[in-house]
Amino acid sequence: MSFDAVDVIRTKRDRGELSDGQIDWVIDAYTKGEVADEQMSALAMAILLNGMNRREIARWTAAMIASGERMDFGKLSRPTADKHSTGGVGDKITLPLAPLVAACGVAVPQLSGRGLGHTGGTLDKLESIPGWRASLSNDELMRQLEEVGAVICAAGDGLAPADKKLYALRDVTGTVEAIPLIASSIMSKKIAEGTGALVLDVKVGSGAFMKDLADARELAETMVALGTDAGVKTVALLTDMSVPLGLTAGNALEVRESVEVLAGGGPADVVELTVALAREMLAAAGVEADPAEKLRDGTAMDVWRAMIAAQGGDPSAELPIAPEQHVVPAPATGVLSKLDALAVGVAAWRLGAGRARKEDPVSPVAGVEMHAKPGDQVTEGQPLLTLHTDDPTRIERALESLTDATEVADSYEPGPLIIDRISP
Amino acid sequence: MSFDAVDVIRTKRDRGELSDGQIDWVIDAYTKGEVADEQMSALAMAILLNGMNRREIARWTAAMIASGERMDFGKLSRPTADKHSTGGVGDKITLPLAPLVAACGVAVPQLSGRGLGHTGGTLDKLESIPGWRASLSNDELMRQLEEVGAVICAAGDGLAPADKKLYALRDVTGTVEAIPLIASSIMSKKIAEGTGALVLDVKVGSGAFMKDLADARELAETMVALGTDAGVKTVALLTDMSVPLGLTAGNALEVRESVEVLAGGGPADVVELTVALAREMLAAAGVEADPAEKLRDGTAMDVWRAMIAAQGGDPSAELPIAPEQHVVPAPATGVLSKLDALAVGVAAWRLGAGRARKEDPVSPVAGVEMHAKPGDQVTEGQPLLTLHTDDPTRIERALESLTDATEVADSYEPGPLIIDRISP
Repeated sequence: MSFDAVDVIRTKRDRGELSDGQIDWVIDAYTKGEVADEQMSALAMAILLNGMNRREIARWTAAMIASGERMDFGKLSRPTADKHSTGGVGDKITLPLAPLVAACGVAVPQLSGRGLGHTGGTLDKLESIPGWRASLSNDELMRQLEEVGAVICAAGDGLAPADKKLYALRDVTGTVEAIPLIASSIMSKKIAEGTGALVLDVKVGSGAFMKDLADARELAETMVALGTDAGVKTVALLTDMSVPLGLTAGNALEVRESVEVLAGGGPADVVELTVALAREMLAAAGVEADPAEKLRDGTAMDVWRAMIAAQGGDPSAELPIAPEQHVVPAPATGVLSKLDALAVGVAAWRLGAGRARKEDPVSPVAGVEMHAKPGDQVTEGQPLLTLHTDDPTRIERALESLTDATEVADSYEPGPLIIDRISP
Repeated sequence: MSFDAVDVIRTKRDRGELSDGQIDWVIDAYTKGEVADEQMSALAMAILLNGMNRREIARWTAAMIASGERMDFGKLSRPTADKHSTGGVGDKITLPLAPLVAACGVAVPQLSGRGLGHTGGTLDKLESIPGWRASLSNDELMRQLEEVGAVICAAGDGLAPADKKLYALRDVTGTVEAIPLIASSIMSKKIAEGTGALVLDVKVGSGAFMKDLADARELAETMVALGTDAGVKTVALLTDMSVPLGLTAGNALEVRESVEVLAGGGPADVVELTVALAREMLAAAGVEADPAEKLRDGTAMDVWRAMIAAQGGDPSAELPIAPEQHVVPAPATGVLSKLDALAVGVAAWRLGAGRARKEDPVSPVAGVEMHAKPGDQVTEGQPLLTLHTDDPTRIERALESLTDATEVADSYEPGPLIIDRISP
């Protein structure tokens, strides 16, 4: 059946509900180029401002899945579980998490992306490991999942091509921040990917896409419902992103910190979130195991080394170090009461760790190292942050973004890292 | 100063006010192709849903004027006055009005458009006169204004090119129905045209663009404020478009009816509105004269003939007549209580009088002739409507659109034609 693009736009503009037929048609016609970019962007703005109900979002997601291929992990000898984070500063959790869950007997296919703006990309981080490559064929992916149990690689072009086209359009038309479109974008790829279980890490706070708890909760609930309706066991954790995760934001810097976690050490917050997400993935996949034990006994580290080696990386190689480092001292003595995630993320980005445009390169060594976290005692003049970069001219602008990033007080009690858990 | 398109879109999306700098930049950059169609359509949808305040609309209009050339009628020996109608069914008022006002001593430059959809276009109507041509150079326009006093011709491409580009975009993106954008589209062209006085005929009812009196009033008030702020003496009449104007809707059919009005006859509603608008134009131009007298004494007809002849038309030529005519009888005896403007407009369009796409031709002879108006006594079986077309296969679909177009009752008292007057 054929529809008229202007009628579809008007329906949503006038606060109506899009029919299943309208949604199927507009996604298919947009993917084929029969609905123009300027029509889809007007529709996206109408959706952003007027919303979609649960049925519309589910249908929109299904239509995006139908625009491309679906993967099938049903032939694997073990269950699969996947994790998606909505992105934050210092969020290296995928790196220790994927091998940890695989070490517990669940296959983890992490099809990931590159970073844009102040949140880092998992692939960018791993590419700081000499020799490691992000692209795998579907056959290579399946083989590695069977043999190693964990894969972190680039998502192929075949999954939800409608989403790829729509996301690029939303990025230039001010229509990214629409919860129905964010939810369907994430979930169309995850459902098409064919995972049996999915754990969502929905971040909230200055360094996250969602600044507001109510928005983050709505996004999490929407995605959990979409996954559940599509037959994927889905839960979400709402986690704090007002402060960076761990003590590093950058590419090689975060790989180093992830390896520390796999070695049984690492910052407490990274360990806490890695283990909590691992427990959720195992429970969703129906496997009983203790992930904390797998960190302690070194089996998670074994999977990490196998996973890196399987994609051409040398897990024993020295990671590169920035030639230029600049120390920011603590401004006063007392308890660190603020370490703003957005400011640290922007600083890392300005130092070269992130990109402004898709085609920009990133520096493997650039980033921010933190020597204290909120709640820690600091002494005036002690190193608080170390800025890492290839290019000393970048330091000044990075420092500008850090002007109001930190505060020292008499006392400070940090809030919980895991704010809530959303299940179907 | 340079801005970022996404920031401008986000400002309006988040219910903010666009700054003067943002508006100037986005219109200029869009005209040059530096802001993409998909960005402007997202902005247009945000404006449609979140509105613009009076300052924003005024600046938007000024930016569209600044995108092109401005005309200057200051060298003419008489004052100028212009009229704009928001479009309706059977709205041939420009045809008798321009020569009538010119006959009273005011120059009338009517830069007009072609019809799209169910409302006819003034140029399409005049092109049913053998030899008449719509395109004039600026020099020809000035000379005819000086010598004849009235010109109805096609608007050149030089006036407000930003509006031309934006209107075409809005047409395909469901963003036509935004009062700030409608007002600035109309007024940018009228102000750039350089008229000293402007009378707006804002139509309301089923056959009009504005179905609702509150919307029509808001549009009229917005346009009167824009004109006044730009130094143009501007008033608006709110007029009824629930019933077609006059007894014809079509091209040659309406020219014939207009000539009847210029000859001192014609339907009462067409005469009433023509004279009322003429009085407003004369008052706005500061000229005292009695237009009704100029219809009676034949001087308006003299200007009409000179105006048509000056553009190559033969004012004495026979107008073409449709080869196919189909009579619709009155369904009952009583008083006609409904004659729906939209239904008649769609019927005329389907008979060939209008176009669905800009590039379609129109038939000079097609249209609908009405033999009674609401409030008139009718007898069952008497001719109520006559459908005119070149193509008998079009009659069936025209009849479909007329299914609920008419009603007959025991008694019926029509409402006023002129509903209100909006002045600064």
